[in-house]
Amino acid sequence: MAYHVAPLERLVEQFERLPGIGKKTAGRLAYHILSRSDAEAKNFADAILEAKEKIHYCKCCQNLTDLELCPVCTDADRDKSFICVVEDPRDVMAFERTREYNGLYHVLHGVISPMDGIGPDSLHIKELMARLSDSEIKEIIMATNPTVEGEATASYISRLIRPMGIKVTRLAYGIPVGGDLEYADEITLSRALEGRNEIK
Amino acid sequence: MAYHVAPLERLVEQFERLPGIGKKTAGRLAYHILSRSDAEAKNFADAILEAKEKIHYCKCCQNLTDLELCPVCTDADRDKSFICVVEDPRDVMAFERTREYNGLYHVLHGVISPMDGIGPDSLHIKELMARLSDSEIKEIIMATNPTVEGEATASYISRLIRPMGIKVTRLAYGIPVGGDLEYADEITLSRALEGRNEIK
Repeated sequence: MAYHVAPLERLVEQFERLPGIGKKTAGRLAYHILSRSDAEAKNFADAILEAKEKIHYCKCCQNLTDLELCPVCTDADRDKSFICVVEDPRDVMAFERTREYNGLYHVLHGVISPMDGIGPDSLHIKELMARLSDSEIKEIIMATNPTVEGEATASYISRLIRPMGIKVTRLAYGIPVGGDLEYADEITLSRALEGRNEIK
Repeated sequence: MAYHVAPLERLVEQFERLPGIGKKTAGRLAYHILSRSDAEAKNFADAILEAKEKIHYCKCCQNLTDLELCPVCTDADRDKSFICVVEDPRDVMAFERTREYNGLYHVLHGVISPMDGIGPDSLHIKELMARLSDSEIKEIIMATNPTVEGEATASYISRLIRPMGIKVTRLAYGIPVGGDLEYADEITLSRALEGRNEIK
């Protein structure tokens, strides 16, 4: 092609590196940036740098925060006897949106996945184990994803914790609310049957 | 929600302002940025600032470039008797990809659209008219999009140019190559019939 604008191509390439953004979308986004004002483009660049600079892991629960301890860990109203163990900071947001859970969290930042070379040492498991010495803790809720890796991670961690006499639970399996039985897969349906509850 | 990380939220908000990016995707992209190295995040921010700073309109054809005149305008091998008038810099890229067109371009940066308050003066029409004094020019190809606004803009500009004795043409309408007649809309099909060519 005869026509090249190096700075534009570099910007397109940067957008292309984002997950789920292909060549065409990257081009569209780059042109959009050029059509905005200088101040708006600067705000975008600053937001990237600021987020990267200020956000780190909470010293206690390993969730993302710009403080030393995240707001959940420092909140006096939170029930400190429960720890919900999740894969990802986004899972914390999902639980917070339910407004049903009032305990603490622990973010592993991944799951055990030998295929991808991720072993238990790559995750924040030792930070979790360090928290368990606190006598206030009564229950660890394993809330990793219902995938092969999520299951393996949940069972690995529960085997570490059980000897310490702390209760370890797993999220319930079943049919999703609003779902359609006809389209539920066999494994989900048999788990839903297994875990059936009496109607009172 | 109890859980807020201000720099993260600002980054999510910036991503949300991009076209076609919703709240969930913006969150995913922001988390992706945080998972990258500091150097990679800085490269992204720099690419935005650099593109915005260095890229401007070509003095002649109004296409985006980081030089005073774009590579097409300065290319001695280009046929300077044709100007292809397009709405957008992306349309130039589309023509360049065909490798069939060897003339010059003129980018309007929009179309006449009274509903959005865009009149002829908001477009780069006067820059096009200024170029027409060059006696080398033989034909202006109107290549605005086949929309109501694109048509109106093409016909407005051609009415300005025709009195100057320069030929003004419009891209052919018809069925797209590889398309399916069954799914072609009525207008496209009747235009294809109207513009039929003899098989030789």
